[in-house]
Parts: sequence; C-alpha cells; structure tokens
Amino acid sequence: MQTELSKKLGVEHALFGFTPFPAVAAAISRAGGFGVLGAVRYTDPDELKRDLDWIEAHVDGMPYGLDVVMPAKKVEGVTEADVEAMIPEGHRQYVRDTLATYAVPELDEGEASGWRITGWMEQVARTQLDVAFDYPIKLLANALGSPPADVIERAHEKGVLVAALAGSARHARKHAEAGIDIVVAQGYEGGGHTGEIASMVLTPEVVEAVAPLPVLAAGGIGSGQQMAAALTLGAQGVWLGSLWLTTTEADMHSRALTRKLLAAGSGDTVRSRALTGKPARQLRTEWTDAWDDPNGPGTLPMPLQGLLVADALSRIQKHEVGPLLGTPVGQIVGRMNSERTVQEVVDDLTRGFEEAVDRLDRIAGRSHE
Amino acid sequence: MQTELSKKLGVEHALFGFTPFPAVAAAISRAGGFGVLGAVRYTDPDELKRDLDWIEAHVDGMPYGLDVVMPAKKVEGVTEADVEAMIPEGHRQYVRDTLATYAVPELDEGEASGWRITGWMEQVARTQLDVAFDYPIKLLANALGSPPADVIERAHEKGVLVAALAGSARHARKHAEAGIDIVVAQGYEGGGHTGEIASMVLTPEVVEAVAPLPVLAAGGIGSGQQMAAALTLGAQGVWLGSLWLTTTEADMHSRALTRKLLAAGSGDTVRSRALTGKPARQLRTEWTDAWDDPNGPGTLPMPLQGLLVADALSRIQKHEVGPLLGTPVGQIVGRMNSERTVQEVVDDLTRGFEEAVDRLDRIAGRSHE
Repeated sequence: MQTELSKKLGVEHALFGFTPFPAVAAAISRAGGFGVLGAVRYTDPDELKRDLDWIEAHVDGMPYGLDVVMPAKKVEGVTEADVEAMIPEGHRQYVRDTLATYAVPELDEGEASGWRITGWMEQVARTQLDVAFDYPIKLLANALGSPPADVIERAHEKGVLVAALAGSARHARKHAEAGIDIVVAQGYEGGGHTGEIASMVLTPEVVEAVAPLPVLAAGGIGSGQQMAAALTLGAQGVWLGSLWLTTTEADMHSRALTRKLLAAGSGDTVRSRALTGKPARQLRTEWTDAWDDPNGPGTLPMPLQGLLVADALSRIQKHEVGPLLGTPVGQIVGRMNSERTVQEVVDDLTRGFEEAVDRLDRIAGRSHE
Repeated sequence: MQTELSKKLGVEHALFGFTPFPAVAAAISRAGGFGVLGAVRYTDPDELKRDLDWIEAHVDGMPYGLDVVMPAKKVEGVTEADVEAMIPEGHRQYVRDTLATYAVPELDEGEASGWRITGWMEQVARTQLDVAFDYPIKLLANALGSPPADVIERAHEKGVLVAALAGSARHARKHAEAGIDIVVAQGYEGGGHTGEIASMVLTPEVVEAVAPLPVLAAGGIGSGQQMAAALTLGAQGVWLGSLWLTTTEADMHSRALTRKLLAAGSGDTVRSRALTGKPARQLRTEWTDAWDDPNGPGTLPMPLQGLLVADALSRIQKHEVGPLLGTPVGQIVGRMNSERTVQEVVDDLTRGFEEAVDRLDRIAGRSHE
C-alpha cells in the first residue's frame, strides 16, 4: 500500500495514527504506519520532552509526528482567569448539581484537572513547538485550523510537513491558501471535533478542492476495508484516532472506560458541544445528555465550556462514575470489541485492505486468478 | 461491474436507481442499471397502471422494480380524518403564520395536495401492489421497515425479490428475520429518512449483520468513485436516489427547485423532522429552519407532521416560493451541478468506477500496466 505521500514520508503503510499515548505512537511507527502524538495535554514542556525522548528510544528510527491545538488567530493578553470570569454562575451550579446527582467525589486537595484550557492557548502550543522542533519530527498537524504563518515557515525550514484538519471543502481551501502541505479531511462520523459532512461525501470533495495537495481521510475508518474505501475516494492515506484507544499500549487510566468502549455500538456516540463548546463526537453518556437536555442551561461557547467542565471531567474519570464516564471517539467504536496490540491492529488493517482490493478487483472483472 | 446480485437480476451494472419519475426509472434500466419506481404518490391505482404501462413500453425488456411505503404494523380502522383531528390548532396556526410571512398564495379551488398521508397507509400500498404484481417487476422495495409477511410471500410466489431499507445493523437483522432478500443500508448522508450512522461505518456493519444476504449501499453515492468505495465496503451494489433529480428526464415541476439543487453544496442539506415527523435529509430552507427553530412549536410525530404540512408544501412548490422551496436530497447534492441525461449519468458512474479501481490497484501495487 503505497501512495506518493507514504513514499515521501518513508513509511510502509499510508496509515497515520493519532494518539495521546507515546507508547501507541511509537508502536504505530514501528509497525510501518506513521504515529502522531497528540500534544494538547502537555502543559509542562518537560513532560513533552520526557515523552519525546521515550518515543525516540522506542521508535527504531521510524518517522513520527506531533499534533498540536493552535488557533490561527492570536488572542492577546487574555489569561485563564479572564476566561473563568466569563462563565455564568448558573452554569457552574448546573455542574455542581449534576455531579451531586451522581454523588461524584471531590478531587483530593491540590489535585489539578489534567484537562485545562491552557493546552488550547497559543503560548502553550508555542512552548510545545519549541520542544518538538529539537526532535526529528517529520509532520506537524494542527487540529484547530491552519497554524500561524510563522509556524508553517519554521516547520518548512526544518523539513517538517504541516497538516491541518478540515471538515468542509471551504475550510480545506483556506488551509491550502495558508501554505500547509497535507489536509486531513475529518468526516462527521469521526471522533472529536467534526462537521456535518460524512466521509463518503467529504473525502472526494476535499481531494478535488485542494488538488494536488495530498489528503488524508479521517472519520469512520477502523478496518482495512474502510481504509481501502477511503483510498478509493482519492485520499493518499488514512488518519485513525479512535481505533488505538482499546490497544494494549493505550494508557486509558480507567478500566471502566475501556470496558465501555469495548461494549459500545456504532450508535452509542453523539456529536455534542458538552466537551469543548464546539460539536465533538464522543461516547453518549448521561453527562452529554445533561448538556444536550433542552431543559438544562445548554453549553457555553469554546473555550468557556472546556474550562467549565475540566475539573468535573477529572472527577468523573478518576472515580470512574459509570453513567457519566466518556471520551471522544468515532462511530467505529462499534467494531472496537477486543483489546489488541498496535501491531495486531495494523496487521488486521493491512490484511483487510488486501482482501478488500481482491474483492473489488473481482467485481470489476480483474481477478488475478 | 458484476456482483452475485447483479447477475441474479440480469443487469449490467450493480446500480439501483430509485426515482418517483417513470421516465427516469426506464432510462436507468435501459442504461444497464436497475430502475426502481417510487410508488408513494400514486393514490389512484389507475395512475400507477398508466405509468407502469409507460415503463413497459420504454424499458426495452430490461428489469425494473417498485418501491412502496408500507408499515409492517397494521393500524386498523384509522381514517385520515381521525389523524387530522389529532393535530393541535397551535401547529396549524404556525403553518398559516409561516406561509403568511412569505406571502405564499393559496391553492386554487378544489386543487388537492399531491402529497397526502394516504400514500403512507397500508390499504393504499396494497392497492398499489395489486396493480404492480400484474407487471413483470423483479424487485419490490419497502422504505418503511419489512413489508407484512403475506406481502413477502406473495412477492416470492411471483419470483419478485423483496428489499427493505435499514439505518442500523439491528434494523437490518430484523428485516433478515422477516424473510426479505436484500437490505438497503441507508447512511446518514443520504436523502430522505436516515439514521445517524454514516455509510462508511454502516455499510460493512450491515453486510456483516445479515450475511449472506446481499446489501445495497445508499447514502453519499453520486460518483463512480463513491460507487467503488461502497462496493469496497462489502455491498453488492449501490442504491442512488438524489442523483437523478437533476437529470433531463426528471419531471420536477419547478425550474426554481432544479436551480436550487444545481446550486446547493454538500453543506446545504439538513436532517429534519419538518417533512414527515421522522428525521429525513432534505435541502435546508427557511421552511425547515422554521420547524427546527427552538422558539417554534416543533414538529409533530409521523404521520401527523406529513398531514399538517401537505397543503403548505403544495402551495410552496406550485408558486415556487424560493426561500421555502425544498426537496429530500442527500449530501451528494454538492456534486449535482449540471443537468444531464440518465445515460450520461450512468456513463459517468461506470467510467469513474473503472478509474477508481485503477487507482486503488496502483496503490495496492497491482498495476496492470
């Protein structure tokens, strides 16, 4: 399975794996794919440095990349406290009431939330980049629009390709104009922030909109068959995030959450603003229901919602409060039914890809028998 | 392009075209696909007879089918007047107010709505079947669950295959248990009634759920590339509805509506209950906005909503009231940008299919050069 892009990056499979876990990222690259470490949670540059050192020591010289969350527009002089002050008291009370309904225990004294707004702010992303550019990363992806021009320039000087996620052809064209190298077309069915256009429609539309730039298809891809379908639609590779959450290398911190993922069907996700204030696909839980409830206060815009619920989500996750416990994940959660190693997942994807090509060749009357 | 199902039905292409227009259905079958006439609007059996006669005279002996809307559960003794009486006055007033806002003219004296509840009732579907079984139809599809057992039996006695639409694997398994022959997996991105699972995820899930029954993929398919992707996902054929609306053979009654379809992008549809009370994808208009408005009365359940808005929709369509004018259509409306004959559309689909297979073969290292 080789495309121009996979050849350019020197990987065996045109298969990009996004993950917040260094062990998963390294294992994807070792298995012949391209591991991309999600950096949003690294508010401490030393932690990012430690984890990139770990990847360097475990990736066997294979290429890998980094994914940051960086707004293209700069918001000057706004602190976390300024944003905190914009949250209405009624919303804070709704958080307290909902947590009380489920008797969710408090965090311990001094125990901070691991999921704060700070990871979304440009200055944090810039400290992440200062660290990352000292490592031989081959790809820098941005989940929140095109990165600022100086970041694209700096990446290109270092020989790093820049990718950006898009949920529409219009969005993708803006990225192309900003000078990025790869567009990740993220379909409606994918985990995390998504638009409303499904991959079947979005992928070819984005491919046509930004040609000759290469496009990676994201959303709805959890098998070799789906990988083959995405490449059929004109993508030069696939971008998978959800599938790694139930690998044995994933450090999910909560067995209860892993069990929920393994048990969930494709209809058990929801595209909700509950997590960040922008629509993001995630497990549907009584927590997302509370925010999507027409009788509740509703969600706040980004970045207020994320800040509002940060501590609550930490409490829910730490204490494994079943009905409220969730995570961003795509509709392919329906086929994440067993814990496997990253290598097993990649083997299954590449074998499934070959079988799908065989079948399509037979239908097209090009059987090789 | 040959699958077991296309061989069984004796068609050149595994390409099923659903359409309310006899001229389109006949043209699809003549072009080597399989035309399926939507019967819902035929409340008068003689009209259906007239149109099936027309198809017989114009299909050059090629196979074709019929699509009915038939509930599996029988509702005894309920008349249209009974259902009318269940509609709250507030909703009727909202219809009048909305039409008044846009100064929509009345229908002429005695001019009935073409889109009434009656087409959805079992007795009407049964009179349609009494007519249709006198013709050599090869497929009977039902858009509303599995048909009743006696209808499936009658079809099988006549050698007619029975298909039913499904938006989830669970739904598809129920159809299989009811004894139908083909499942049409209708993805979220498709026009008309859809569930929330996108085709990329739904198609393989339904294929696995009902194997060895053949599955047709519906939703998001408007090019040969998308057709190849759907077959890659395990389908034995594709089911296309939207794409025919802008063919020269389609009798849309409204040039303004055709122009709207040609101009719409993939983001210009909405999955709304405005039309029937169940979520159905359609052009987003100020009419659908009015029903999806949280400050409005909201929609009524099926079949009340369809009855409530029937006359209003006839008025909007007859008088071509631009901002309110809509139609069920899928996200592929974004690539319906020119009026073409059915033959041109089919040629484009089959050529695009071959090109997509070529490209996938190259990626898989099976180039035939």
